[in-house]
Amino acid sequence: MEEKEAFDKYKNFSEWFRTIIMDAELVDTRYPVKGCYVWRPYGFKLRKYVLDIIRRLLNNTGHEEVLFPLLIPEDILGLEKEHIKGFEGEVYWVTHGGLRRLEKKLALRPTSETAMYSMFKKWVHSHADLPIKVYQIVNIFRYETKATKPLIRVREVTTFKEAHTVHATMEEAEKQVKEAVEVYSKFFNELGIPYIICRRPNFDKFAGAEYSIAFDTLMPDGRTMQIGTVHNLGQNFAKAFELTYEDINGKHQFAYQTCYGISERVIAAIVAIHGDNRGAIFLPSIAPIQVVIVPIIYKGEEEKVLQQCRKVLNALKQEGIRTFLDERDISPGRKFYDWEFRGVPVRIEIGPKDVANNQVTIVRRDTFERKTYSMEDLTTVIKEIFTEIEENLRKRAWEEFRKRIFRVKNLQEAKEIIQNRRGIALIPWCESDECGLKMCEEVDGDVLGVVLSEDLVNLAENEVCPICGKETKKMAAIAKTY
Amino acid sequence: MEEKEAFDKYKNFSEWFRTIIMDAELVDTRYPVKGCYVWRPYGFKLRKYVLDIIRRLLNNTGHEEVLFPLLIPEDILGLEKEHIKGFEGEVYWVTHGGLRRLEKKLALRPTSETAMYSMFKKWVHSHADLPIKVYQIVNIFRYETKATKPLIRVREVTTFKEAHTVHATMEEAEKQVKEAVEVYSKFFNELGIPYIICRRPNFDKFAGAEYSIAFDTLMPDGRTMQIGTVHNLGQNFAKAFELTYEDINGKHQFAYQTCYGISERVIAAIVAIHGDNRGAIFLPSIAPIQVVIVPIIYKGEEEKVLQQCRKVLNALKQEGIRTFLDERDISPGRKFYDWEFRGVPVRIEIGPKDVANNQVTIVRRDTFERKTYSMEDLTTVIKEIFTEIEENLRKRAWEEFRKRIFRVKNLQEAKEIIQNRRGIALIPWCESDECGLKMCEEVDGDVLGVVLSEDLVNLAENEVCPICGKETKKMAAIAKTY
Repeated sequence: MEEKEAFDKYKNFSEWFRTIIMDAELVDTRYPVKGCYVWRPYGFKLRKYVLDIIRRLLNNTGHEEVLFPLLIPEDILGLEKEHIKGFEGEVYWVTHGGLRRLEKKLALRPTSETAMYSMFKKWVHSHADLPIKVYQIVNIFRYETKATKPLIRVREVTTFKEAHTVHATMEEAEKQVKEAVEVYSKFFNELGIPYIICRRPNFDKFAGAEYSIAFDTLMPDGRTMQIGTVHNLGQNFAKAFELTYEDINGKHQFAYQTCYGISERVIAAIVAIHGDNRGAIFLPSIAPIQVVIVPIIYKGEEEKVLQQCRKVLNALKQEGIRTFLDERDISPGRKFYDWEFRGVPVRIEIGPKDVANNQVTIVRRDTFERKTYSMEDLTTVIKEIFTEIEENLRKRAWEEFRKRIFRVKNLQEAKEIIQNRRGIALIPWCESDECGLKMCEEVDGDVLGVVLSEDLVNLAENEVCPICGKETKKMAAIAKTY
Repeated sequence: MEEKEAFDKYKNFSEWFRTIIMDAELVDTRYPVKGCYVWRPYGFKLRKYVLDIIRRLLNNTGHEEVLFPLLIPEDILGLEKEHIKGFEGEVYWVTHGGLRRLEKKLALRPTSETAMYSMFKKWVHSHADLPIKVYQIVNIFRYETKATKPLIRVREVTTFKEAHTVHATMEEAEKQVKEAVEVYSKFFNELGIPYIICRRPNFDKFAGAEYSIAFDTLMPDGRTMQIGTVHNLGQNFAKAFELTYEDINGKHQFAYQTCYGISERVIAAIVAIHGDNRGAIFLPSIAPIQVVIVPIIYKGEEEKVLQQCRKVLNALKQEGIRTFLDERDISPGRKFYDWEFRGVPVRIEIGPKDVANNQVTIVRRDTFERKTYSMEDLTTVIKEIFTEIEENLRKRAWEEFRKRIFRVKNLQEAKEIIQNRRGIALIPWCESDECGLKMCEEVDGDVLGVVLSEDLVNLAENEVCPICGKETKKMAAIAKTY
């Protein structure tokens, strides 16, 4: 019983999370370099289906995929002064090739602004070359000195989707920021990951940006986790990299830029948010295995049952449903346990009675609802169940999330919410760095920024900043963060 | 005229190749780190469709995709002694994280045997865990000191597809080698890349392998290029990494392993082999754009023609055909030139006469054949043309390849073939390292190894090695190599 108690999503989130990602064979965290880990086949498939979604959303909005080098020369990484200040403490450096010292140190990209923009300069000549809208999905490296945590705080980010755009005017850059926020909203909505959107405080914006907008979700332990960011870079990098274009009057102008990124934290959020104390629960759209068939065998009827199982397997596969028939020589109960743990959204059980009645028994992973269905139209039924599961998981996650967002009257209440209630506190804020930093101190938490999610905030008139007393219509979100 | 002369596939291959990959916007070679380059959107799509093929072939033969870390600790990279000897001269080393020196140097993977096998050890317990058949598609790094050449000899190999397998017995490892050779044969056949398969001489096998089998193709300048390798590692790595399994008798046995890889050299081969002096030619299966529509506009009839073009565009897109309508305000001739250069396999021209007759004019990129077709069944016609183009390109490439393989009687003839005839010479060989190295010296070329391609070699009885005079039934392939 002791072990069982440890595996509890809310009581012991860290251990619960680690157990799922390891034992469901998503990743292996035992790789002998700290902060680096291996994607195993099952996890790799999950990752692929998640990336398929973001690729579709980006391609449909005119983004094109590219691939830039990993290595960035020291001088180029340092061109934008704020940027390098933000990253110099966490860059890995390559200093030797073979047995020789390199003339110029090479950084492992911590992000690719500098790698890309030195090339964009060669691609952009006139306004006709704009906009540029590209993205890549690559590994990046950050020498994290804090405790690493698989998928959440790592040294090799294996799955960094970074988009970068170039525009002729600030208006277009602003429009691009909106598009990016929309794309990410759709992405997280499809995945049923609830989020709050904030404009980050100035003291917490991306190094080199004019401003940063971020998506945060809430983990079961009450900490928020940043799962997506959108940055308006203004002309900061364009000036550092001399990225100019000739406008319609033949004048050279500096370009405007944006960039936005997500990472494997999305996968961490999927595991953390939808899972329960029996294991992972994957939405059918991204589940590596969508349906598992478990034969219920009685002596003497093995072949009849297995034949029926194979018939169902083939029928579902033909329809493109990712199905697995578990023929292992272990008890059905043990199989149920395994596949529930691994998050397979639909289980089909077939026993002699089912064969006799030309039916199957279907169990949903999200609700454990158990029902029998005729073999006729089985694939249609399964697809309907997929839709129901997706809707239920999304609804459930958002309800849970909303329950944990609290409109508070003062900083004492805010502190109570984030220290003891595992929630996010909303409180008026004048938006100054000074008051923001003071609030962080007083509540022993972080100001996520000014809340932009209109559905989550309903500001009354005449609110005042709890620090300086200035009137404001802006609301800050405060939380414990990852 | 001077410039035109420079762009000639056979007279000036290097310049021709560089011009295509740069000006067709496959890659950008101006990245400020030597041997590293950027995949641009058009090239990235080509790369994706090529990788789709190898992924399909590997997945269909029970391989699973994974993703391992880039960084390998120094001690683990050094575990297999032959392996590290082969790679130590060309490994990039990370020595600093942030402003601190790392306690243990980290290598950028030059290949992933050591990264993977230290984990396989944790995954394999009993014979029931075997075989393991996994692959990953990643970047690897080699500090090449020779002149780098984009896609061919690079420092960041951006597209390394490496497969790794673990087996209980040598027989199974041998069977796996055969499967790998079959998979690669199918892959290159689909791409119309002709190849000769050889078992590499001992002095040229993969560092740590029992033996290596390689696929070489022939470039227009007469040099062969290695485009795929398959290695039987025997128990060499298993012993170094203590990779054992418990057999059915409960005894611990060292496992047997194989690995096999391809890289972006495949893309280099596609460009080099199918292209002509008007530019690239891509097989429809991998072409980023399969059909380009060029409106032939006369004053006063613009709208009618454009309407018809858009109708065709939508019809083809609906059928999943990657189609682009070129509405730029430049002459049709200029458009023809551009899209021919970029290798689009099919061009559709639509002018007022075509609209009036409800027809289109189709021009094939491979033969420049020009024909009119009715608008009825257009997508069926296009798909038939795709098939014809694929068959023609494959046939053409193999014919050209076979013409340049010569059965020679002595080393003088072999030298003549590889120095002046841009070909591959076949000559009997006793298979000893000593004679192999002497042959290399005498012909000023390389011994690719013992030819395994049965369709390319027909050995008579009683042949003798030209160096030692020993009787042999084996034939060596000799060539100038990349």
